[in-house]
Amino acid sequence: MPPVDKLLLEETLQDSPQTRSLLSVFEEDAETLTEYTNKLLQSMQRVYGAQNEMSIATQQLSKQLLAYEKQNFALSKGDEEVISTLQRFARVVDELNSLHTELAKQLADTMIFPMIQFRERDLTEVSTLKDLFLLASNEHDAAMAKYSKLPKRRENEKLKSEVVAEVASARKKQHQTSLQYYCALNALQYRKRGAMLDPLLGFTQGQINFFKMGVEMFSKTLEDFLSSVATMVHR
Amino acid sequence: MPPVDKLLLEETLQDSPQTRSLLSVFEEDAETLTEYTNKLLQSMQRVYGAQNEMSIATQQLSKQLLAYEKQNFALSKGDEEVISTLQRFARVVDELNSLHTELAKQLADTMIFPMIQFRERDLTEVSTLKDLFLLASNEHDAAMAKYSKLPKRRENEKLKSEVVAEVASARKKQHQTSLQYYCALNALQYRKRGAMLDPLLGFTQGQINFFKMGVEMFSKTLEDFLSSVATMVHR
Repeated sequence: MPPVDKLLLEETLQDSPQTRSLLSVFEEDAETLTEYTNKLLQSMQRVYGAQNEMSIATQQLSKQLLAYEKQNFALSKGDEEVISTLQRFARVVDELNSLHTELAKQLADTMIFPMIQFRERDLTEVSTLKDLFLLASNEHDAAMAKYSKLPKRRENEKLKSEVVAEVASARKKQHQTSLQYYCALNALQYRKRGAMLDPLLGFTQGQINFFKMGVEMFSKTLEDFLSSVATMVHR
Repeated sequence: MPPVDKLLLEETLQDSPQTRSLLSVFEEDAETLTEYTNKLLQSMQRVYGAQNEMSIATQQLSKQLLAYEKQNFALSKGDEEVISTLQRFARVVDELNSLHTELAKQLADTMIFPMIQFRERDLTEVSTLKDLFLLASNEHDAAMAKYSKLPKRRENEKLKSEVVAEVASARKKQHQTSLQYYCALNALQYRKRGAMLDPLLGFTQGQINFFKMGVEMFSKTLEDFLSSVATMVHR
């Protein structure tokens, strides 16, 4: 089969076997995409969850470092130095926490949110329209079956015109539904690439910002502090 | 009370009320330190857990990106470009994963391990010696009580010498145990500062390395890749 761009809306009225066959290809693609999207979203949510947990964990660690001062150690000799050093470490952990919190927020906004939106909006729309399309097709088939079973005699003119009206109405409804369904399937193909790649752009951009800010934060001053602590501990 | 450096080992033999009172200060300090160490270790383990989880989560995300190629999408038009872009993103996530894994390893080695070692070795030793010291003190008290209840009459010379030997043995045992106990309590005071600060040096040094490597990894080349993806997605 040559590559296909989209379902042609003008084919919906005739509803030929060829069109139906092409439709089934788009439907299969949409199903595969739905399954893959769910798994990818799960993986992304796990990364986001870990990032969030890191944000909470660093916050708790900082609190715990500050809590040293409130322990009322029975022997407090030399504790002022330990307390002030722990306070400085708590500031480091706080700054790290702010980086982690910022990254978690960015991942939520630029990775998780677009992915969920794609699932809730585009994929769900296709799935809903598929149901409506099937319903309308069945109604149309039922009307057609009724029509084909009509007795040929003349005295049934009134019944006949009623069934013809029913067929026309069902056909119209099916046509409208298929127009919407085909449009949604075409839109899905159009959005597929962006839906997969945009969240990863967000993810990577978030990491770049995180590392840039991290390097700025962990400056020369901090390395000086660390060597003074190392000296203090091992003297 | 003026600041005290250590329990004097020469006081263990006399075991005066003043020495006992000073001992109780050291014991109280050791208890506070044990409680605080446990809480701090918990906070550190939560950070380490989050770091480990991030390492696993990024590994899974990379796998999921590579899995796109194996989905057999019914419509594969334009997929080569998506596949190769996802493969490039998977490499980015892989490199990020190696940084997270390295950091998790560093936190385990330089933050969690020394903290657990301090708890399992120093704090547990003090607690064990405290039990032994109490036991020896009780035995000594019991021997002393027996001695004080000895009848004053002469015919009990043999019993008396037995009890005296018992008291001497108990005192010797108590003296030896208290020597060890005092030593351990002094050592704890000496190690307290390093035990608190060394893991934080490890933690901070790990973060510095992580950010340095991260900035190197997320180089100009990657930013070029990201802008080409952005163009591709939004064209």
